[in-house]
This record gives sequence, C-alpha cells and structure tokens, in this order.
Amino acid sequence: MRLTRESINQNVVRAQYAVRGELAVKSEEYRARLKKGDKTLPFEQIISANIGNPQQLDQKPITFFRQVLSLLENPQLLDKEDVLVESLGYKSDVIERARRLLKEVGSVGAYSASAGAPAIKESIAAFLERRDGFPADPSKIFLSAGASSGVNTLLNVISADVNTGVLIPIPQYPLYTATLSLLNAKAVPYYLDESKAWSTNLEIVKEAYEKGKAEGVDVRCIVIINPGNPTGASLAEKDIRDVIDFASQKNLVVMADEVYQTNVFIGEFHSFKSVLRKLQKENPGKYDGVELASLHSISKGMVGECGHRGGYFELVGFDSEVEAEIYKFVSIMLCAPVIGQCLVELMVNPPKEGEPSHELYQKEYSAIFNGLRDRATALHKAFEQMEGVECTEPQGSMYLFPTIKLPAKALDAAAAEGRKADEFYCLKMLEATGVCVVPGSGFGQKEGTLHFRTTFLAPGTEWISSIVKFHKEFLDKCR
Amino acid sequence: MRLTRESINQNVVRAQYAVRGELAVKSEEYRARLKKGDKTLPFEQIISANIGNPQQLDQKPITFFRQVLSLLENPQLLDKEDVLVESLGYKSDVIERARRLLKEVGSVGAYSASAGAPAIKESIAAFLERRDGFPADPSKIFLSAGASSGVNTLLNVISADVNTGVLIPIPQYPLYTATLSLLNAKAVPYYLDESKAWSTNLEIVKEAYEKGKAEGVDVRCIVIINPGNPTGASLAEKDIRDVIDFASQKNLVVMADEVYQTNVFIGEFHSFKSVLRKLQKENPGKYDGVELASLHSISKGMVGECGHRGGYFELVGFDSEVEAEIYKFVSIMLCAPVIGQCLVELMVNPPKEGEPSHELYQKEYSAIFNGLRDRATALHKAFEQMEGVECTEPQGSMYLFPTIKLPAKALDAAAAEGRKADEFYCLKMLEATGVCVVPGSGFGQKEGTLHFRTTFLAPGTEWISSIVKFHKEFLDKCR
Repeated sequence: MRLTRESINQNVVRAQYAVRGELAVKSEEYRARLKKGDKTLPFEQIISANIGNPQQLDQKPITFFRQVLSLLENPQLLDKEDVLVESLGYKSDVIERARRLLKEVGSVGAYSASAGAPAIKESIAAFLERRDGFPADPSKIFLSAGASSGVNTLLNVISADVNTGVLIPIPQYPLYTATLSLLNAKAVPYYLDESKAWSTNLEIVKEAYEKGKAEGVDVRCIVIINPGNPTGASLAEKDIRDVIDFASQKNLVVMADEVYQTNVFIGEFHSFKSVLRKLQKENPGKYDGVELASLHSISKGMVGECGHRGGYFELVGFDSEVEAEIYKFVSIMLCAPVIGQCLVELMVNPPKEGEPSHELYQKEYSAIFNGLRDRATALHKAFEQMEGVECTEPQGSMYLFPTIKLPAKALDAAAAEGRKADEFYCLKMLEATGVCVVPGSGFGQKEGTLHFRTTFLAPGTEWISSIVKFHKEFLDKCR
Repeated sequence: MRLTRESINQNVVRAQYAVRGELAVKSEEYRARLKKGDKTLPFEQIISANIGNPQQLDQKPITFFRQVLSLLENPQLLDKEDVLVESLGYKSDVIERARRLLKEVGSVGAYSASAGAPAIKESIAAFLERRDGFPADPSKIFLSAGASSGVNTLLNVISADVNTGVLIPIPQYPLYTATLSLLNAKAVPYYLDESKAWSTNLEIVKEAYEKGKAEGVDVRCIVIINPGNPTGASLAEKDIRDVIDFASQKNLVVMADEVYQTNVFIGEFHSFKSVLRKLQKENPGKYDGVELASLHSISKGMVGECGHRGGYFELVGFDSEVEAEIYKFVSIMLCAPVIGQCLVELMVNPPKEGEPSHELYQKEYSAIFNGLRDRATALHKAFEQMEGVECTEPQGSMYLFPTIKLPAKALDAAAAEGRKADEFYCLKMLEATGVCVVPGSGFGQKEGTLHFRTTFLAPGTEWISSIVKFHKEFLDKCR
C-alpha cells in the first residue's frame, strides 16, 4: 500500500496550523508572480502581516548582536583585531564577548551539551535573577530551537495518553492545539475575556476545567500566553496570582509562554516565575508543589531573530526524574542551534551602561520599540474608523486582533464557497490588497464572532489605508 | 497529581538514546572536574569518541563557508568591501555568494518559507542533478534542522498507529528506535551482516519483514543508513538495487539516511535516488510506485557543522496529498534555522575550479578527508592488535564498531553490577582512560555479541594507546 492522506498518521492530518496555511501559500504565489513582473494584480507588493517575522519586513537586526555573531562564525577575524576596530568599527566589548562565547562553546559548528552550553545557561540564570529578584538554577534551564521546540518538548512529556487534557486559551497561538493533535491529547479550551481586553477570567478557566473533568479528561496543565498571541493582552499581576493559585489547587503544570515579555506598551510585564516566588514567600509551604515551565525566545521582542531559532525554557518545581526524561527527550534531537544559543546569551546579557556598544544598542532598541508602538497605534486608529470593526487598545505582543461584523450577504457568499466567513473575508482582503492576515478561526474564537489577526510590523501606512479601502468596498458590495 | 516518571508520557520514558546517555553524562562530569584542576583522575583529558562531533575535537571549519556566514550575520560588512578584500583576505566569490544568499533570504534573522528558502532548494536540486545524473525537483526538497529533524518529520507522518512497523537495521543509529518509541510505533529489526562487512543481506531483510507481517505488523518503511552508522559499511550498488526491488514488491517507503555520503574510503557512494532512477530507466513502469525519502546533513562529511543544525530531505514518488501533510507538519515548527539552510547551500555548491576560493577549499577539504582516513586506519590497526577484538576494515562514515569478546569473569562482574557487559566494559574504559565510547547495546547487536562504537575524529594517537593499554589490563584482571 502506498502512503495516502487516508493511510498516514491521522493525528498529522487532523492538526491545524493556519498561520502558514492556505492564505500564506497563496500570498507566496502572488509574491512570485510580482517578482516575475506580473502586472495583472491589483497591488504591487505582498505585506506578510500573517506572521510575527520582524526582519522579513522592516526591522533591522541589532548591530551588537550581529557583530558578535560574525566573529563567532569566522573566528579567524579575531586575529585581525586592529582591522576590526579601526576599519570596521567593532567595539572592544564586541570582541571580548565573541572571545568569551567561543571559549565556552568551542566552535559554533560543534554540538553543545543536549540542554545547551553550560555557560549560556548560567548567563540566562543570572538574567532571570536580575529580572525577577529571585534565584534561578542553570541546571533547570533548557535551550531550545525557538520557543516552539520547547513547547513541543513539554507537551510531549506531559501528554500521557488520549485522555490527557491541557487548558488552552482561546484565541490561542495554534502551535498548542496543533501539537496536542499530533500527540492525540486533548485541548481543553478556556475563552479569554474580550470585554476585558482579552484578560484571563478565572471563572471561565474554572468552568472549562470542571467541564473537562466532568467529561473524564485528565486535565494536567494550563497554558498562558502573556503578553497574548493573537490578542496582545498584557496580564495584570492579580490575574497571574489567580492562575497560579488555581493551578496549585488543581495540581496543574503552569506553562507560561512569555516570548513577548519585552513587547509591552501598557503597564509592565510580570513573569510567572516572579509572581510564583512572591506567593511562595508570602504563604510559606502553600505553593511549594507548583510546577512551572516558562518559555522565552529570540524571535520576538526587539531582537526579532526568528530565523536563528533560539529560545529556552526554565523549569520550577519539577520532579528530578521528570527533568531527566526531558533531558533525554531533547538529547534525541542532539541540541538547539548553537549560534541561536549564543544569540540567547546576547539577548539576556546585552551591553551595559558605560560599555562601548551600549549607546548604539540602546538607541536601536528604543527605535524598534517606539516604531512598533507607533505602528500599533496607527493601525488601531484605522480599525476604529472601520465600520463594524472593534479592536482593543494595543497593550503588547506584535498583534492586533479586531472583531469584525459582516453583513448576512457576506456570510452567505462565504458559505456558498464552503468557507468560514472570516477566512472568506481575509482571502478577499489578500486578493484585493496583497495584505496577508490570518482569520480568527485559525486561533479559535467564540461561536458567532469573527476576527482576524494582523501584525503591526510592516512599515509605512499605505498598506493600512489599503485595508481600510478594501473593507469599505467589501461592505458596500455586501449590503 | 504532580508529574512523575510514572505519570508522564510512557513513550518518552521507554525511548532509549545511549549516544548521550549515562556514559556521556559521566564524561562531562569528569571534564568539569579536570577543568576545575582535579588531579585525582588517572587521565588528563576527556576524549568524546561517543559522538560524531568533528568540531568539538580537531576539525576546523572550512574557511569559505565561515567567511560567507560571517557576512550573512553582519551584512554591514559588505559596505566595506575594500577592507574585506585587502585587510581580511576575503575573496570575491565569498562576497558574491553572501550577496546572492542575502538577496534570496532577506535576513538570516527572518523565518524562511516553511520547507526552506526557495533559492536554496533550487541549489540543492541542481546539486542532486550533478551528483546523480537525473533531474531533481526543488518542490520535493524540504530543509530541516539536521537530518534528525527530517527523520522525525518522516516517521511522524508514516506512523499511523501502534501497529505501524518500520524496518530498522541493527545495529542502528538510535534516533530511529527512539523516535518510533515516542510515536508508539514498532521497530522491525533486520540484522546487518557482520561477516560481510556489515552489508545489507536481503535474505535477512525478507525474514524480518515476514516475521513482522506474521505478527500482524503493518510494515510500511525500510530505513537504510549508507554509509552505515555505527558500522561504517558502504553499500555496493547491487545491495541498493536489491533493497529497492524488495521495497517495490512490498510497497515499502525507502528512507535512505545518506548523511555520510562523502565519508567513503573504499569504493564509491551510490545514492538511492540514482539507483532508483537507473532501475526505472531499465525497467519502464516497474518501479514507478517506489516512494523514496533521502536525507542529507551539514553535520558530517568534511563540513562537520553539527552545531548549525542544517540538512534536507528529498521526496521521490510520494502522493501530493501526503507531501502537503509533510509541509503542514514542518510548518508547525516554522522553519529550519536559516543560517543552517545557507550552510546547506554552501555545502552543495562549493567553490568551483577556477574560482578564487577553490584552491583553499580543496586543500582544506582534502586535508580533512585524508586525516579522517588516516586516523581510521590507525585506530583499526590498534584494534587488530587487541586480544579478543575484531573489526571490519574502515569503509566509510566516522565510526568503527569492533566486536569484543570478554572473559566469563568480566561478564559476571558486569552482571553483579546489574549492567550489560559492553556497558560495563565501556564504563571501565572511561574511568581508566577518559575516552568515552558507546556500548554496542546502544545500537543493537546480535544476542551474545558485544561491541562498542568509537569515532575516529580525535586527534593524536595517545588516546588510542590508552585504549590498548586499558584493554590489556582489563583482560588481565578478568582472567
């Protein structure tokens, strides 16, 4: 029997991952046509607002990071320090950092230890201590190929059988449900509260948990994405305390996806680790059993180095035998990309005030941060002008997730094509404007509501105007 | 309930991966002790002969590759072409290649398309055409994070349920059985023929297949590692023809792990793709249904860039709907590391004769090749002198896999410690010499036989002498 869609692993067939689905593929076809000089399309460029991929669009890499990486890739350059300094403008801290990292990893072309280079884990632990004000243990840190690979590891270990359930926020980044599909485990959805800027509503979480339990599901874990993807929500400390307290009561592993921790425009980021440690300090003994895995990445924030596939997760409160199984799991894939590991180190340990590269680093970092905030605001303003569109004020992450209300005629037209209404809308947007966004159904949304997710990474305002114009024409046609 | 070894995914618990198991962990502890100045150990350095990690040991990266990568990491350097050329010795083809790759991928910090950057897939296809003399289709090529990640993708898609079986050579690289364990599918072992230099014996393959079928296993795929890991075998074209013919008769997917394709000392490498195309040409229609997935990597060969996690697989004869599911699967992890993808491009398209970097490239490449062959020969010679040790002449890959015969007293001592005899032997070797090898039981071996796998990557001959000395003393103690 040859392999067919029907005969292969049905867990793969069932998995859904819209971020790189049909619309993304279609947008790449358009891009190829434009590149070949096709003049028949009603737009001149493709705006890939479907995926948080900063450097594909406007974001320039941070100079300090890339200077260090260039030396790691070609250590022979370190023999010409004078040329580096005098002719190429490399500062002394760039050279020192490259030497130090090379001393630790040997060659970036060599496998590191399975869970990552020890010195890089130590540097991450030092960062976590500075960030949280509580100690961190390097031996509980695992480097990964982006946070996605960390999520994959953790869900693989947690998912014992078809009955394992994991509480997943809806809307969610579809990595979670796709991975649970692959593992044939159950996503137990809990809805985020759109009326409260997409925050976590503990009552709704409880209901979802109880419903899962009532159906016989072995609910083991709760996933929180903070700041939120696709929602952009930034959780208050109180919300985080509530989640941890609930997890403690129900013995749930807390999986905190904190990859957008520096993309915060309103209020400030609170790490799950710091809140857990505070709770433990305030209530001796009570929260000692909480198991927390928190994830971070070089792909987001002002770093934006998606293509380098770097990240890590930290474990708190896990059984040492379970940690050993996690170690074995990651060792089967040998190690995370070493140059990506080095970038993690640079991210968590950037030039400090007074060091030669600090000024430029700070300038570049702020420019990216401000640029993202300004674009988010401009896009939000545009959404406010659009009929039937409502959108929470931008708080964090790289996305806006507006609600759209479409007229009955549009819903019928979508149904006639056998498409979900939001998918239909996004497809028409792509066809009219070259802007690729992702339908809300790709992330999950309340029955009867429609959304789409767009990044605010693309430069300029023309593409935003083109969305506004498309929307008006779409509605006019459907009245 | 908190997570425990008993409550987590038992497929993870059951998975075995000895290459980075207990001995490797112990060797790293010794390394840390030596680094801290510990003088109580009977050796002064750790030789990690347990893993094919060339750049951890002596192998230097190829200059052309790393020069290009340094420019990809810091494209600002391209603004100072005169400095690059005059002060740093970068040749014009280095600069041209970096410009071309940057034009194709944009930034190495951006996600590429899920299956890899289109231009890199085209370059791989061109390489395959040159290598095999038959066309290759870029749309059937998937970039991966090392070959391991490609194997993971393919086995995920193929393994429909607990009844799926995959023919696996024994001894094997344990990635295969570990991944099948994780997927709760079945490894159907077929033994390689040690008496014929570890080649594939079709009669044995048939027996294994029939045995699997008789037990009700849905045998779907045959894995061949050529050149062999851990055996070093290099298959003759006839053997490959036989395997393809058998796969065709039984409708088995052929998974050809060809990561050691340039590590061949005796005879020449025959790719499964070229042999399949020849068979198809000679027998019109007969082999059209064969499904072949062949894998390659930047980690091995003279490239040895393990830490960069790059590789690809090419599909031949797969159903397009199955290809679409493979695409979706890889898209969930977003993309392979982009700098690793670029390194794949450099590997398959190195400087050509007459180009400025060619001479140095060729010199470095040959020096690595000759060094590996010479070390393999020296190690083999040492094994020939050791009592009770037999080892096939080195043919290819990076490993030797000698048989060892141990006296009854040694077997008893191992049993008393609750260890397998080869594990006991390798542990004693590590404790006495600092040389870390992997027991044959980590790869599988015929009942009643004992082996170990060692790389021949480590420089010098001292560590080889230390193995010879240890072996003699070990035997003397056990007589």
